[in-house]
Amino acid sequence: MKAIRVMEPYDLQVVEVEEPSITESNEVKIRMKAMGICGSDMHILHGQNPFATYPRIIGHEVAGEVIELGDSVTGLNVGDKVVIEPMTSCGECYACKQGRRNVCEHVEVYGVHQDGGGREVAVFPEDLVHRVNSNLNWSEVALIEPFSIGAQAIYRGQVQKNDMVYIIGAGPIGLCCLKMVKHAGAKVAISDFNQERLDFAKKWGADVTINPQQQQVEDELLIWTNGMGANVVIDAVGTPKTVEQAVEVTSVAARVVLLGFNVESSRIAQVNITKKELTICGSRLQTERFPVVVDLFNSDDFDVEDLISHEFPIDDAKKAFKLMEAMPPALRKVIIKM
Amino acid sequence: MKAIRVMEPYDLQVVEVEEPSITESNEVKIRMKAMGICGSDMHILHGQNPFATYPRIIGHEVAGEVIELGDSVTGLNVGDKVVIEPMTSCGECYACKQGRRNVCEHVEVYGVHQDGGGREVAVFPEDLVHRVNSNLNWSEVALIEPFSIGAQAIYRGQVQKNDMVYIIGAGPIGLCCLKMVKHAGAKVAISDFNQERLDFAKKWGADVTINPQQQQVEDELLIWTNGMGANVVIDAVGTPKTVEQAVEVTSVAARVVLLGFNVESSRIAQVNITKKELTICGSRLQTERFPVVVDLFNSDDFDVEDLISHEFPIDDAKKAFKLMEAMPPALRKVIIKM
Repeated sequence: MKAIRVMEPYDLQVVEVEEPSITESNEVKIRMKAMGICGSDMHILHGQNPFATYPRIIGHEVAGEVIELGDSVTGLNVGDKVVIEPMTSCGECYACKQGRRNVCEHVEVYGVHQDGGGREVAVFPEDLVHRVNSNLNWSEVALIEPFSIGAQAIYRGQVQKNDMVYIIGAGPIGLCCLKMVKHAGAKVAISDFNQERLDFAKKWGADVTINPQQQQVEDELLIWTNGMGANVVIDAVGTPKTVEQAVEVTSVAARVVLLGFNVESSRIAQVNITKKELTICGSRLQTERFPVVVDLFNSDDFDVEDLISHEFPIDDAKKAFKLMEAMPPALRKVIIKM
Repeated sequence: MKAIRVMEPYDLQVVEVEEPSITESNEVKIRMKAMGICGSDMHILHGQNPFATYPRIIGHEVAGEVIELGDSVTGLNVGDKVVIEPMTSCGECYACKQGRRNVCEHVEVYGVHQDGGGREVAVFPEDLVHRVNSNLNWSEVALIEPFSIGAQAIYRGQVQKNDMVYIIGAGPIGLCCLKMVKHAGAKVAISDFNQERLDFAKKWGADVTINPQQQQVEDELLIWTNGMGANVVIDAVGTPKTVEQAVEVTSVAARVVLLGFNVESSRIAQVNITKKELTICGSRLQTERFPVVVDLFNSDDFDVEDLISHEFPIDDAKKAFKLMEAMPPALRKVIIKM
C-alpha cells in the first residue's frame, strides 16, 4: 500500500509500505480516505519541526472508514466514517491530571512524533477514533482536526456571545477560528496581507477585514470597537510583532490567544497586562475539542467545505506540497485523497 | 479632624480638614481606626502613581467603626466594625458586565483617584463597607485589603490544592499571597533578597525559601518540583527580569500571575507560552474577593496579625512613611492608628 513519507528534510516520497495490522485489542484498522496538509507538515518537510524525527509518514488531519475492529472495541462498527484525534498522552503527569493532555509531558502527535495517517491503511486506538455522520464527504471530515485547533483557541480565549474578536491572519487556522467565533455569536475583525483570503473571510462572516499593508490595524480596531479595543485577540500568524500587536489592541479584561511557535522574543511591558488585567494564553493542539467539533460538523448549519481550495490524489502528493510552497493567493486548504 | 494628605509629590502632611457628612441615602459615616501603608501610597508620595492627582487624602487599606447610617442603609448598624473595599466602578462597561469591575473603564480607587480613608472620619457607600467580626483588632482589619489583592492573585492563577506555587518576592503582598496559597492547600516556594523576610515566610508556612543572591532560582525550583517546574508563579516584585523568570520556571499548563506595573518591556518568546500552553494573567486590585477574605479573617484558623511590624499614631504619619522609605530589613506591614 502507499504512504506519504518524508524521508529526511526536503525529501517527500510516496512509497510502498506494508499494511499495518491490529496488534492490541483496543485498536481499529482504518482505510484512510483524505488527509489535509497543515503548516506543520510543511515544517516537517522543511526540517523546521523540532518534534519530528525522520523518516516519517506524515498526516494528522485525516479521515477514513473503519475496516476492522480489535476484540475489545465496542464503540465503533466496520463501515463507520471516522476522523482521527491525532494525539496520545500519558494520563499520569500534571497536565493530564488537569485535563490538559495536549501539553502532557509525553504527548505524541501522529504524523509528527509517530507515523501518521498519510497512508492507505492505518491503525489507531479506539479512543482516538471519532465517528461522524455518513453524509459528510471525506475531505470535509479531514477538516475536523484543524477546526479542533480553532475550537481550542476560542476555548482558551473564552470567547463569548457578542465579544468583539480580532483574528490576526486569515490562513486556514485563522479561518477555522473565524468560523468558530462567528458560531459562538461573537463579532470578528480579521487581518491578512492577502486580499483573496480577506475576501473569503468576508464570505465566511467576518464583520471587518483589515489589510495591514493598506490600513492602520490599531485605528481600524478602535473605530470598530468604538474605542474599547478587542475583547479577544487570536494571533494565528505568530511573529514577534503580531504578539506585541495582539497585547496592544486589547480591551480591558481581554484574552490574547497565541498559536505560534516562533522562538524570537516579543517585547511586552507588564503594565500593559496588569493595567487591563489581560489573560494571555498559549493554545496548543486541543483537548476535549473533538466531540465539540464533530457535533458542529454533523449539524446542518456548519458548512465549511469551501475552505478546501485544492485536492490531489495520493500519487500527486509532491505536487500538493509544491503548491503549498508556492502559496498562490487563492490557496486555502489542500487535501490529498487516498 | 485630622487627615493624612499628600499635598504634592514629596509633601505629606497631617492636616486639619472638615468632617464629611452623609449626602446620599446609601452612605455610611465611619470613624476610621487603622490604615495600612501600601507600596502604592509610597508611589503617590513619590509622584510615581500615574492615577493619583494632588492634593490627595491617601488610605485604601482602612478599617473603622460605623457611626452613622444614610436613610436607605439596611445592611449595617452603628457600632459595626468594618473594612472598606476602596474601589468604585461604572457597572456599564465591558469589564463591569463581565464581572471584572476592577478594570472598569471608569474605575476609581479611594486614596488614589478620590480621597481615601486616611482620616479620622470618612463617608463611603454601603456596598463598599464590609462588616467583620467584633473580636478582630483594628490593625488586623486593615490587612483585609492587601489580603484581597493576594486573593485576587490566587483566583487569577487558579491555585488548586497540591499545586506547587512559586512566589517572587516576600514583601507584604508576596506574604499575603503565601498565606492564601497555603490556605488553599498548595505548596509554596518563595524568593526574596531579604533574609528576614524569608525567615518570616518560613514561619508562615513557605515550604522552600530561595535567596537569589545565594542560590540559583531555576535549579532550586527544578529540585523542589522534581523537574516539573512551578504550576503557578506569582510575581509580586515586577521587574522586567522577574517577569521573564516567571515564564521560564513554569510547568506545562501553568499560570503566571503578574502584579507589577513596570513600564519596561520584558522579552518573552511566544514558543515558551504555546509549548506549555501557559496562561499569563494580570492581577489588578480585586473583584468579589472581599467577602472571601472577610470570611477567612472571621474564621479561627487564619491568623495574620504578625504581618504587622510597626504601628504609628496618625500624628506620626510622616515618621511612618520615613520608615517605609528607609526599608529596614525587619519591615513588613506598617499601620497608622487613627
